[in-house]
Amino acid sequence: MYKLSIDAMSGDLGSSIVVEACSAFIKDHADVELHVTGKKEELEKLTHHERIQIVDARDVVPMDAGIMSVRRKKESSMVKAVTLANDGIVDGVVSCGSTGAFYTSAMLFLKRIEGVEKSCLMAMLPTYNKKGVVLLDVGANAENTAEQLKDFAIMGHVYAKNIRGIQKPKVALLNIGSEAKKGDEVHQQTYQLLEEDKMINFVGNIEGRDILLGEVDVIVTDGFSGNIALKTCEGAASVLMKMVKESMMSSLSGKIGALFAKSSLYSLKDQFDYKSVGGALMVGFEKAVVKAHGASDSKAFYNAMELAYQMVKMDVVTQMKEGLKVS
Amino acid sequence: MYKLSIDAMSGDLGSSIVVEACSAFIKDHADVELHVTGKKEELEKLTHHERIQIVDARDVVPMDAGIMSVRRKKESSMVKAVTLANDGIVDGVVSCGSTGAFYTSAMLFLKRIEGVEKSCLMAMLPTYNKKGVVLLDVGANAENTAEQLKDFAIMGHVYAKNIRGIQKPKVALLNIGSEAKKGDEVHQQTYQLLEEDKMINFVGNIEGRDILLGEVDVIVTDGFSGNIALKTCEGAASVLMKMVKESMMSSLSGKIGALFAKSSLYSLKDQFDYKSVGGALMVGFEKAVVKAHGASDSKAFYNAMELAYQMVKMDVVTQMKEGLKVS
Repeated sequence: MYKLSIDAMSGDLGSSIVVEACSAFIKDHADVELHVTGKKEELEKLTHHERIQIVDARDVVPMDAGIMSVRRKKESSMVKAVTLANDGIVDGVVSCGSTGAFYTSAMLFLKRIEGVEKSCLMAMLPTYNKKGVVLLDVGANAENTAEQLKDFAIMGHVYAKNIRGIQKPKVALLNIGSEAKKGDEVHQQTYQLLEEDKMINFVGNIEGRDILLGEVDVIVTDGFSGNIALKTCEGAASVLMKMVKESMMSSLSGKIGALFAKSSLYSLKDQFDYKSVGGALMVGFEKAVVKAHGASDSKAFYNAMELAYQMVKMDVVTQMKEGLKVS
Repeated sequence: MYKLSIDAMSGDLGSSIVVEACSAFIKDHADVELHVTGKKEELEKLTHHERIQIVDARDVVPMDAGIMSVRRKKESSMVKAVTLANDGIVDGVVSCGSTGAFYTSAMLFLKRIEGVEKSCLMAMLPTYNKKGVVLLDVGANAENTAEQLKDFAIMGHVYAKNIRGIQKPKVALLNIGSEAKKGDEVHQQTYQLLEEDKMINFVGNIEGRDILLGEVDVIVTDGFSGNIALKTCEGAASVLMKMVKESMMSSLSGKIGALFAKSSLYSLKDQFDYKSVGGALMVGFEKAVVKAHGASDSKAFYNAMELAYQMVKMDVVTQMKEGLKVS
């Protein structure tokens, strides 16, 4: 039986979408046990299922909670869900609270893998060739050492291999040029470490303009640059789509064109919708930690649960541990 | 008389587009004198104009030239053009060689403004609201100190005020969150310095997703993050436009739509075309230094010349000097 804890309260849209997702998920997965944290009166629909446990939690961590606030919220649905993972009652935890608050909860209340100096945030981006690419760290850390970046590379490699089924994932380092000597000292050292590593299929540096091509499977970056890259992608995509729409609406032939092209453009929008990917992963912890988007609907939350389920089923954390030991 | 030196040889498309641009430029500007460096037999069409001087240069700096190679190319059209600026014979220099080689030439053969520790690369990006935004440094430096970032902010401010005519340009710092304490130490210190500065209208941190909105006029960043941000924008824009096209071409109604929407989409492409902006600026030097794009056609090269001309005419370098002295 694979066990997950589910924070039902921290999303923008309240507990109802989580209840809906849990009901569907438990029906689809006969080998899953759920521990759902939240106000029990809001979770009544789930109480009668034998593989669902309700853990009453009266408090909610607000979206903008800082570290001090999270520390005080021990009775919250989020911290209780994380604590269930730390106590070994479940193997994975899912929340749609804010990234900052959820990451802080994990930092405070969940053990890191031994030897890993820094945990980090991993995002899955859609790519031009539809293969997708994993980018980490996308912002958990404001700076990183070369050793930390190497740990991220190993965790990204294990994820791509086990969850995405890529035998020899191509791992690249985000940098400002292709040569080994590009970038600051940290990035030059990281290049060296990754090239020497026997497990990782390191293919060299990658520049910002090639992130979305999908020619590599894993992109390693410090949390500062990774955050800039991820958010710049999101921003550029959103501005471009708006501009496409407005540019077509500004002429009659464009308007007629838009009418005909509508469904094609919508399918593109879906494809490039970060929400459809399920969620961001927090890696480096002893348990699988998946953040669903704050504005998740029940389908997106279900996808985030599926990701946590796969992580647990494929025992990805154990394999990350082993990879980190070998390297 | 405003004097510019023009490197005629270093672009992908050879000297002919430069000759064409110079002919048109000299006709349109009665107050300009051009010193064109290159193989004199390729520049014959320009020889008979009284305000054009031909400086014979037998060598060409290749696109991929490193620092050692540039150092040896004293007889090249590029180094000769830069040297004319350093010797005070001209006040601005334009080239369409590679960014790396041209920047290296300026570093080696052109004086920096006194007190400026680092020169840098400034790019002009199109924005959603069509106002455009200036981003610097976009990759001349692999790392920067807070003091250097403050210098960039001042130079960006002076540029936006004088060349773009914005009375109180809004200056923001590229960072991974909006709060003053976000980012690594360098970015926290920079936040502090910019907030204390009396000349600069500092509006706080800006995140990657807001770069293309156009709500600020100048974005200051270290060369590493700036390079990632610029190239990620370019990459995302190019991938998105390709996907829009293909997504429309994949269905019959999409195809019909594309036919009608064609001109709207082309006008968008133009608007988002980095080439149409003219060129990147190298700032922190005693003279105006403008890089036209490597694949410039004569119109793009003309635009780069226009930018150098405006820089000289508005005496931007002197104003940068004064701004840097006051701060």
